[in-house]
Amino acid sequence: MSGRLRNLYIGLIHYPVYDKRRRRICSAVTTVDLHDLARLCATYGLQGLFIVTPLQDQRALVERVKRHWTEGYGAVYNPHRRLALEHLRVASSLEDAAEDIRTFEGTPPLRMATDASQPAEGCIGYPQARRILATPGRPVFLLLGTAWGLTEEVFTVSDHLLEPIYGPTGYNHLSVRTAAAIILDRLARPDPEESSSAPA
Amino acid sequence: MSGRLRNLYIGLIHYPVYDKRRRRICSAVTTVDLHDLARLCATYGLQGLFIVTPLQDQRALVERVKRHWTEGYGAVYNPHRRLALEHLRVASSLEDAAEDIRTFEGTPPLRMATDASQPAEGCIGYPQARRILATPGRPVFLLLGTAWGLTEEVFTVSDHLLEPIYGPTGYNHLSVRTAAAIILDRLARPDPEESSSAPA
Repeated sequence: MSGRLRNLYIGLIHYPVYDKRRRRICSAVTTVDLHDLARLCATYGLQGLFIVTPLQDQRALVERVKRHWTEGYGAVYNPHRRLALEHLRVASSLEDAAEDIRTFEGTPPLRMATDASQPAEGCIGYPQARRILATPGRPVFLLLGTAWGLTEEVFTVSDHLLEPIYGPTGYNHLSVRTAAAIILDRLARPDPEESSSAPA
Repeated sequence: MSGRLRNLYIGLIHYPVYDKRRRRICSAVTTVDLHDLARLCATYGLQGLFIVTPLQDQRALVERVKRHWTEGYGAVYNPHRRLALEHLRVASSLEDAAEDIRTFEGTPPLRMATDASQPAEGCIGYPQARRILATPGRPVFLLLGTAWGLTEEVFTVSDHLLEPIYGPTGYNHLSVRTAAAIILDRLARPDPEESSSAPA
């Protein structure tokens, strides 16, 4: 197992995303996502998790969940959950989140978008994504879409598009929670090809 | 990417599991688990997903969710979800689920338990687990605990215990949904060590 994903931030994007009919919408925050993604951030050693939504009441909900588990009764009830939910931040837009990362890191993050349905052309694979993440002092902002996925305009302001998760079947309709788990595990582990390309 | 996990069944165990204070309890079914695990089953080509609980009303709830998405309005609204939720079955006990698998497969399944906190001694690693799964005609029943994990008595009736998910940090408190995603992705992909042991 390789090192922590210290340069990595996750952005869980609720706007702009597509609905089922490919209309641009703002999706609702799903609290189970906050917990599952925060626990993944703690497991893989990420810097932070931005919940991105322009809706003020939705950001307030996220802040309330965070306070409960980091300062309120939840912090005493389950300290493991406190450690995880301390990763949680909110932002009203992708640009605002990127600006927060720039302020913290001193350099703007590379934006790496994800999409389940994007064709493989133009995507980067996991070996290249791991090399990017291994560059010191260069934060990476991994953008995860909710609902039916990130809109085209997010791809146009991204530096890279990470290849979709291909399982052994043609089916690739995972929840954002389980897709994030697989992406982070793949980013933290070397590929078979990488090892075999440097035989002992 | 290697082949489908054709020999694999998942059992999501709600009894017997531990609560926070290590008392033996029956946990409540969480409907988001049904969806996330069913979608993983479709992605990785598993045979089936057993929701195991002795509580009749909880099994009825699972059946109702399944019907909605496979026969009801949900099947029309989202055919992808129908394909996934067709993997869903219920059983009142681990033994009943294993017996259903035996009836279907003609041979009883090997039981492979999982645990986040189990020490590494006595566990099998992913290379061995993949070899077991590659044996034709030998079904494997992967047991996932809810709440605070499977009880000792489940381990005593299991053939193997799969090593816990180690990330690059010491933190390993994942949701069962995200843990299942990582386990299936690792079971479907060869390890770097396996490839590098047979260099070109």
